[in-house]
Amino acid sequence: MRILLLNGNISTSVTESLAAEARMYAAPGTEIVATQCSRGAAFVASRASEVVAANAMLEAVAAYQDQYDAILVAISFDTAVAALREMLPVPVIGMTEAACHVATMVSARFGVVVPGARSAAVYRERMVGNGFGPRLAGMRVVGPSAAVLYGDPESALQSIHTAAQALVEEDGCEAVILAGAALVGMHHRLQPRLPVPVIDGIACGVGMLETLVRLKLPKPQYGSYALPEPAQLEKIDPALAELFANPQPSKP
Amino acid sequence: MRILLLNGNISTSVTESLAAEARMYAAPGTEIVATQCSRGAAFVASRASEVVAANAMLEAVAAYQDQYDAILVAISFDTAVAALREMLPVPVIGMTEAACHVATMVSARFGVVVPGARSAAVYRERMVGNGFGPRLAGMRVVGPSAAVLYGDPESALQSIHTAAQALVEEDGCEAVILAGAALVGMHHRLQPRLPVPVIDGIACGVGMLETLVRLKLPKPQYGSYALPEPAQLEKIDPALAELFANPQPSKP
Amino acid sequence: MRILLLNGNISTSVTESLAAEARMYAAPGTEIVATQCSRGAAFVASRASEVVAANAMLEAVAAYQDQYDAILVAISFDTAVAALREMLPVPVIGMTEAACHVATMVSARFGVVVPGARSAAVYRERMVGNGFGPRLAGMRVVGPSAAVLYGDPESALQSIHTAAQALVEEDGCEAVILAGAALVGMHHRLQPRLPVPVIDGIACGVGMLETLVRLKLPKPQYGSYALPEPAQLEKIDPALAELFANPQPSKP
Amino acid sequence: MRILLLNGNISTSVTESLAAEARMYAAPGTEIVATQCSRGAAFVASRASEVVAANAMLEAVAAYQDQYDAILVAISFDTAVAALREMLPVPVIGMTEAACHVATMVSARFGVVVPGARSAAVYRERMVGNGFGPRLAGMRVVGPSAAVLYGDPESALQSIHTAAQALVEEDGCEAVILAGAALVGMHHRLQPRLPVPVIDGIACGVGMLETLVRLKLPKPQYGSYALPEPAQLEKIDPALAELFANPQPSKP
Amino acid sequence: MRILLLNGNISTSVTESLAAEARMYAAPGTEIVATQCSRGAAFVASRASEVVAANAMLEAVAAYQDQYDAILVAISFDTAVAALREMLPVPVIGMTEAACHVATMVSARFGVVVPGARSAAVYRERMVGNGFGPRLAGMRVVGPSAAVLYGDPESALQSIHTAAQALVEEDGCEAVILAGAALVGMHHRLQPRLPVPVIDGIACGVGMLETLVRLKLPKPQYGSYALPEPAQLEKIDPALAELFANPQPSKP
Amino acid sequence: MRILLLNGNISTSVTESLAAEARMYAAPGTEIVATQCSRGAAFVASRASEVVAANAMLEAVAAYQDQYDAILVAISFDTAVAALREMLPVPVIGMTEAACHVATMVSARFGVVVPGARSAAVYRERMVGNGFGPRLAGMRVVGPSAAVLYGDPESALQSIHTAAQALVEEDGCEAVILAGAALVGMHHRLQPRLPVPVIDGIACGVGMLETLVRLKLPKPQYGSYALPEPAQLEKIDPALAELFANPQPSKP
Repeated sequence: MRILLLNGNISTSVTESLAAEARMYAAPGTEIVATQCSRGAAFVASRASEVVAANAMLEAVAAYQDQYDAILVAISFDTAVAALREMLPVPVIGMTEAACHVATMVSARFGVVVPGARSAAVYRERMVGNGFGPRLAGMRVVGPSAAVLYGDPESALQSIHTAAQALVEEDGCEAVILAGAALVGMHHRLQPRLPVPVIDGIACGVGMLETLVRLKLPKPQYGSYALPEPAQLEKIDPALAELFANPQPSKP
Repeated sequence: MRILLLNGNISTSVTESLAAEARMYAAPGTEIVATQCSRGAAFVASRASEVVAANAMLEAVAAYQDQYDAILVAISFDTAVAALREMLPVPVIGMTEAACHVATMVSARFGVVVPGARSAAVYRERMVGNGFGPRLAGMRVVGPSAAVLYGDPESALQSIHTAAQALVEEDGCEAVILAGAALVGMHHRLQPRLPVPVIDGIACGVGMLETLVRLKLPKPQYGSYALPEPAQLEKIDPALAELFANPQPSKP
Repeated sequence: MRILLLNGNISTSVTESLAAEARMYAAPGTEIVATQCSRGAAFVASRASEVVAANAMLEAVAAYQDQYDAILVAISFDTAVAALREMLPVPVIGMTEAACHVATMVSARFGVVVPGARSAAVYRERMVGNGFGPRLAGMRVVGPSAAVLYGDPESALQSIHTAAQALVEEDGCEAVILAGAALVGMHHRLQPRLPVPVIDGIACGVGMLETLVRLKLPKPQYGSYALPEPAQLEKIDPALAELFANPQPSKP
Repeated sequence: MRILLLNGNISTSVTESLAAEARMYAAPGTEIVATQCSRGAAFVASRASEVVAANAMLEAVAAYQDQYDAILVAISFDTAVAALREMLPVPVIGMTEAACHVATMVSARFGVVVPGARSAAVYRERMVGNGFGPRLAGMRVVGPSAAVLYGDPESALQSIHTAAQALVEEDGCEAVILAGAALVGMHHRLQPRLPVPVIDGIACGVGMLETLVRLKLPKPQYGSYALPEPAQLEKIDPALAELFANPQPSKP
Repeated sequence: MRILLLNGNISTSVTESLAAEARMYAAPGTEIVATQCSRGAAFVASRASEVVAANAMLEAVAAYQDQYDAILVAISFDTAVAALREMLPVPVIGMTEAACHVATMVSARFGVVVPGARSAAVYRERMVGNGFGPRLAGMRVVGPSAAVLYGDPESALQSIHTAAQALVEEDGCEAVILAGAALVGMHHRLQPRLPVPVIDGIACGVGMLETLVRLKLPKPQYGSYALPEPAQLEKIDPALAELFANPQPSKP
Repeated sequence: MRILLLNGNISTSVTESLAAEARMYAAPGTEIVATQCSRGAAFVASRASEVVAANAMLEAVAAYQDQYDAILVAISFDTAVAALREMLPVPVIGMTEAACHVATMVSARFGVVVPGARSAAVYRERMVGNGFGPRLAGMRVVGPSAAVLYGDPESALQSIHTAAQALVEEDGCEAVILAGAALVGMHHRLQPRLPVPVIDGIACGVGMLETLVRLKLPKPQYGSYALPEPAQLEKIDPALAELFANPQPSKP
């Protein structure tokens, strides 16, 4: 099967890192293809730039011509997951929700390390919004911002380690999620230093999608994830307009 | 003070209806100005078209040159409220969250009449996401879809009345919110027929914003609603790119 | 319009301070009138004295002869709000619930500074009882008791500042409510020192009531806030007995 | 031991019925004494009259001169329980919270039959406020009001039976609480007709208090149920004023 | 009445300690009899050994020939309570759920001292699963494990005292539960040092059962606690097989 | 990889049906092996027989000598999942929790069809206990009991179809889980008749475990799922005693 990894920003190097990580965990026979937005931010760091990214992600999917069986939303806010899940005939999952699913399969309650105070509330809203509130035991912020954090990986590793330890020892977390797509791969270095599973969303998302593809569940014909009625949207990207005008009930 | 009513679709006639309703409830001295998106849907009826609308709403705000003191998001999904609240130095509120606030001031628990099964989950996610779950006693769907419902106002009125009565008598709701911007004004006709307050979000939003403007609370300098760092977003609408590049710490 | 500010204790000087604060935020055309209880405590500091205050507040309203359009309950436990909302034909709101409403309009989650450990559970019960649990991120106690705290305003200011900072930095609160009517006005001094909005309930309550009055929602005729049946209560304050015997379906 | 049953209204006949019911379930050696309010309503049927009852209940306790070891609040809104628990050195429990405790010991989730739509929200607020929300599976209203219901006991019995069956069969309730002090004793007639336990609060309250008295837990010296500081309350009932001025740290 | 105290492990000395504690709080006329498992662990310290204990507890009950009116499950995980409640015609309660019930009758919110990080999640699951989440304010772990803790009672007492104080002062707990059957009796020494009630489950369970026995509630004939249909279980303990084959609808 | 499907009852024919279903969804390279309990019930239909099954499942695992990489608990109550997850070095998941995970990936909120009123509360406890409460929109009971239901598959199919439709149309469920291992395979027939995904836990469990095995998360060394200390359990099944005495830190 082919999984399309969709990066929510415009950085091809980030796309490549994410895809490489995804490929490490894919089952035999699973191919990871990847794309990113053609406009927007190099790094989504605000609620507002996420809005731009969401729109650009729809455009990127509309523009993507090759076949695929599922979409992995590879931006840690799980941007546009609900819209893509509604609009497309294939399974869609976000990397952070995938991490939360896995965390609840290996722990009683889990914790999250969050890059920058600005993003803490956003992650909490998404996790609680997805229903993970009863299993979320703690959230710790590292770094003044994600940008600063990512600028100094060694220092970041140390800060994240300290935060993760506090989640375990003070908040009783039995698994730790590293939030932030830019942290992808850091779990390889962090896991040996921590007594609980360290969970990265990309790896989890690949597995969840493989499962969903094999389940062959039908596209809903009722409710908020059924295919929308065809609609004429004006003055938007032509490929996206075409997608709205002719939503596809079966796989590309 | 001036309140900017921001319609999330491209219909100027809907904008005018919404603005007229807003003006009916504005305090003396409050001016309602209004704008809408320059692209997107005539009617936002899916999760996916909401993503397009959110982006277009940011563009509309970036393009809007006149002064204003607050923004009323006049699309019933409360689209882009969090992003606008973050990005702008003025208060922002959505019409549906405003309705929920008012409902909890006049009832023990409230109910919602929702146009179309497709939108029920979306409204619930927003209301619960905003923390109104403990006060939400029921939600009833009317019509096969919002589009069909709005196409026959007399029939819609009857359906909504029946649904609202069921919310009161079967679910114990002590106030009823009419969700859906296209229903604006219908509460005038429905209220005389129901024994509990019927709440329309536009009117509520005007009052909430008047309050917020008078409170003169400072723009947060911490957390998820603080002004984002300046950012270069590529290949997006020039006015919006300028807003991201130079976020304004004080009122326009 | 006229808003009746109802102080739950017998101190006219507190009434005056509260009314002065209310007037600072009232819209043009809003008149603030004020009254207090004729019996009870100078300062409501226990669950038991709140019971006495609630009864005295009903008596105060029964005795109040002038016209008004809404009632602002100016005691920070929001004492008797539900009973007044039921019994009277005009909107009623409590200062603390009003503060919570506003806090959720400007922050992801908010925190509360509470005077004295004794009152912490009471505030939490009220806030959670009003449904604000999902948005309440932290509560910090200052001072051995409210009485001691209010006795030394400079020291109180410092303690409150420290507590508020901890709410922001450790608990991730994006707005801070100062609970306690006796703290009224302190937010003016505290706001410049904190990076998030500092919220005072009196100001918020004025705005919420102005909104409710303009909405002209009808008195419920169903449920727990409908006007009670006339009832003969024995051996109680004559004016209050008269109010129970002849509940007024329209504004005084 | 002696348990003081405190009726929240002024009807001595209701007091006697309640006391008789309590005596049926008391352990050997437990004496039930009873009193009621000297002013207020014959029947508490509104949020407002409950406020008056709460004050009168404090007065009744202040006036009560004999010794007792615990107080059973025999008014189904559990009026003034928190204030009495704070103010007195002995255990205090309300009949409805006692019923909820017992219901959760014999069922997975329970339901409640409520007299009159007006009171449904109040019972729900109390039960959820006491933390029983996760175990509350349904609430059904019978009768236009409690007054009408109590006026025709045979018809009431039939209505309650129908409501209770619906709680069991449609809502999956595994126990049923009859709310409303005026329904006391009806469970004797209803139990044989229902396949799940029918729970009356008076009987439960007696047992809970016997337990609490035997546990000999100390009066809290910290928090919201610690004895308040002595306070001078003006122009109130002399015996109650004395109680506030000299709160008793040990049993009367 | 006779209450059967059922110890979930095989230690007769622990059974005796627990029974002695129970007798201290039993009402006049209540006889405490006790038994324990004939196989399994001397101390249940894991989720897996609890599974073995649950099965052994059913066997112990099946083997117990004398009469009794209720069962007190005297293992602090409340092991097998639901199964016993279903299978037997008499009331059953667990010591920890009993403690939670009492804690909510004397405090606004309570805290728990837990022996060993391994058991913290288990206690939380049970308490939240029983619906006590809204009243649970804090949980503090003492000791590397329960085994180590119990091996040095003096040191344990000090650690528990420190943890309990933190629950009160930092988390605002107004009562403290000591979790862990092996801690039975320690509350006698701890109570004088703490300003809030210290609650031991054995004492609470005795009182709850005395109440339930006096209530004479019928065995449910509907739902998850109704007597199961007779069933043939193969190759299990003969006495237990007999109990499954002939569930007893009335008291032994 | 090899997944061990563990049936909680003693029926080899059920084991084979479950294994056949599992094999339909397994990825290339995944081998499904299966076993069942050597004692207990042919069909687990009560809380009490589940206790026996849990113990027998531990014994079955202790007795199982071949290698495997993960365990799928193929009994719809998810019996003993937590104990196995703790005790074993490999991933463990229950079929019903797996179904819930998948349901939340394809719907806003899901519903459950439950065989028999007796089991409804048990499924709810498990689902809510696993944290799925916020996503659970409805639960409908079919049949007087699971046994009766399974005895007439055609009639069962019709009943389940009706219940599932009600979940969709009345409760707004966007996916439906069929609870009950004995229903395995029925989703193949039901799916074509329903407009939303119909979810069977066996298929979901296989995918979740394939994911977990590929993630290679380490066995926790902290918390409630860390390997227990070696313990001597007396008079139990020898193989199980050996497992407790020598818990294996790495895969069999």
